[in-house]
Amino acid sequence: MRITLLTDFGTADGYVAAMKGAIAEIAPSVLVDDASHDIPPGDIIAAAFALRRYWTLYPEGTVHVVVVDPGVGSERRALMAEVHGRFLVGPDNGVLGLVLKDAEQFRVFEINAQVHASRTFHGRDVFAPAAARLAAGASIDTLGRAITDPVWIILPPPIATESSVLGEVVHVDHFGNLISNIPADLVKAGHVAKIAERVARVVGTYADGETGELIALINSDRLLEFAIGNANAAGSLHLERGAAVELHAQSSGPFLM
Amino acid sequence: MRITLLTDFGTADGYVAAMKGAIAEIAPSVLVDDASHDIPPGDIIAAAFALRRYWTLYPEGTVHVVVVDPGVGSERRALMAEVHGRFLVGPDNGVLGLVLKDAEQFRVFEINAQVHASRTFHGRDVFAPAAARLAAGASIDTLGRAITDPVWIILPPPIATESSVLGEVVHVDHFGNLISNIPADLVKAGHVAKIAERVARVVGTYADGETGELIALINSDRLLEFAIGNANAAGSLHLERGAAVELHAQSSGPFLM
Amino acid sequence: MRITLLTDFGTADGYVAAMKGAIAEIAPSVLVDDASHDIPPGDIIAAAFALRRYWTLYPEGTVHVVVVDPGVGSERRALMAEVHGRFLVGPDNGVLGLVLKDAEQFRVFEINAQVHASRTFHGRDVFAPAAARLAAGASIDTLGRAITDPVWIILPPPIATESSVLGEVVHVDHFGNLISNIPADLVKAGHVAKIAERVARVVGTYADGETGELIALINSDRLLEFAIGNANAAGSLHLERGAAVELHAQSSGPFLM
Repeated sequence: MRITLLTDFGTADGYVAAMKGAIAEIAPSVLVDDASHDIPPGDIIAAAFALRRYWTLYPEGTVHVVVVDPGVGSERRALMAEVHGRFLVGPDNGVLGLVLKDAEQFRVFEINAQVHASRTFHGRDVFAPAAARLAAGASIDTLGRAITDPVWIILPPPIATESSVLGEVVHVDHFGNLISNIPADLVKAGHVAKIAERVARVVGTYADGETGELIALINSDRLLEFAIGNANAAGSLHLERGAAVELHAQSSGPFLM
Repeated sequence: MRITLLTDFGTADGYVAAMKGAIAEIAPSVLVDDASHDIPPGDIIAAAFALRRYWTLYPEGTVHVVVVDPGVGSERRALMAEVHGRFLVGPDNGVLGLVLKDAEQFRVFEINAQVHASRTFHGRDVFAPAAARLAAGASIDTLGRAITDPVWIILPPPIATESSVLGEVVHVDHFGNLISNIPADLVKAGHVAKIAERVARVVGTYADGETGELIALINSDRLLEFAIGNANAAGSLHLERGAAVELHAQSSGPFLM
Repeated sequence: MRITLLTDFGTADGYVAAMKGAIAEIAPSVLVDDASHDIPPGDIIAAAFALRRYWTLYPEGTVHVVVVDPGVGSERRALMAEVHGRFLVGPDNGVLGLVLKDAEQFRVFEINAQVHASRTFHGRDVFAPAAARLAAGASIDTLGRAITDPVWIILPPPIATESSVLGEVVHVDHFGNLISNIPADLVKAGHVAKIAERVARVVGTYADGETGELIALINSDRLLEFAIGNANAAGSLHLERGAAVELHAQSSGPFLM
């Protein structure tokens, strides 16, 4: 059985290793994959977005732990979910909400209170033990009580009219590529793609862009993405999450571009 | 069996992977957990502090390797220790010394000289092989000779009087939280907590702090820690390891704060 | 069986976790070691250099995956190789070429086209599945067709005359140490070692250097390397890959140094 870990802890303080130790103590032979510990501190959307990218690629039975938890020790609940045969474990602040929102079917549970849990490190004291018990085969409903109202995250939806689609950048990746909220099925032949008022050439893959050229493509998550050939687009254009993205039919503007 | 690795190597050069390969060659089925490779270069105290956070959380039999080793190839010894059922492996420069100092019982060994070891990469040539052999079940006393004088690290102790406790910051974590050397049992109800002459409100957990508010709490290692609500305290206050921390009885100052 | 992963993806976006999920789906019990995900974006030479450092240290049967792939989705081929009992998997852009060039014997294959592969993420859609199948025991020649012309990387060779050796820096490591292309067997007793016209004292290991002193030594890959005692040499000297390195017999200059 396998557990994945996604946090904003960095690794240098040993917080992640403390979680791994707590897992190994309960489930010594479980395999633990680091997803990432480099989520920007407290960035719930970035964590939710990353989780969405990999959670279904793992086989059924995998336990995905997400700890980006600025509300640790407050009234926010600690959750476990069973979704499409995988398990999700994390705080009830939306880090799991993007996946749950898209899922056809799921069960969510509040993790039973842990008597000796600290108020400041539930990664070690609550989430890691719950994940280890799930990976070791415990039945999810013995570890918590069912709830129906987890915190959702809903990314801003694109606005589509007959002649245009308005969207925005929802994630900037490690390469500085700007990922929008516009899904592939809204991108039509002949569409002009713009980001922050700049026209991008629509291409099939990164290598189609000349060095320095602004391009747009359908990325591996089937979303419209903007990049610059052999460069960091976010850095070059000084753009970040929230930047305006637009698709419109070529004939809709006064000039051909 | 499981080995953890803590280094200041970063990963991009392949030094860590070389250690993992050397382990896999000797003990192909051992599980290897990355604790961290982001210890600041040469920062023995940071490594010792991180190790202390996780080493006992792992089950007995775990082998914890720490390679922060500016003295590689010099006269400094290469050590293995058996402590509370776990094994520690690393250079004799103090990286293991904080754990050993706190342990009730331990045995320390100098690792036998390796004939073909380089003078510049004992992570690969000395520590990884020793760890792999321990994880594979070798008896520790067949791999080295007992010694009694490892290099200790002793963090500066806090100074407690009847009305106050003077301490200092001993670690700044990934979130910019400032961790002091004052243990929870020296923090009394009614104490005023100060860092670098600023008064912090004593709270139970991070989320109790308003955005921008300086707070103090007992952290998950039972130490007094200073943070700022939704911000990086070390960055905002321009403080680092060594900053002065103070607790005093409320009535000790001329003004109520 | 064990797979290692070397990429320039960082971890925060979940791209690496997507690769690990794709592996776990095909080969659930395979062990996956992170070599690094911190290769500078698109830096094929850095990836090739890192791979060369660890690939033979792992036992036979290990599958080493390298994804630094600016040409993803273009005409560049996807490769697998069998070399000295290990497997290499990655794009045909030179990331594998440094190892292949040095190998005595190898077989290289173009990975069969994957019907549902995206054009932008072959790490997930092509390389991870091929690696998982190799680790699970598939015969390499059932997964692709043999080729004979992979892209090589050949580091610039040093130029040796009777009285001197001229080389250059081919890698700067995490510590700022400057690694040259001059192998140990070209370094003779009495040689004066220079980098960017500065004379370095030839020593045995890092700790032999005084704080701030420029030193040269034979590193753990048997290459001439320059460092500064307790400092970051690349940062202090403002040097990078390509900086000139020189060895010459002490009597060859007009002045003794």
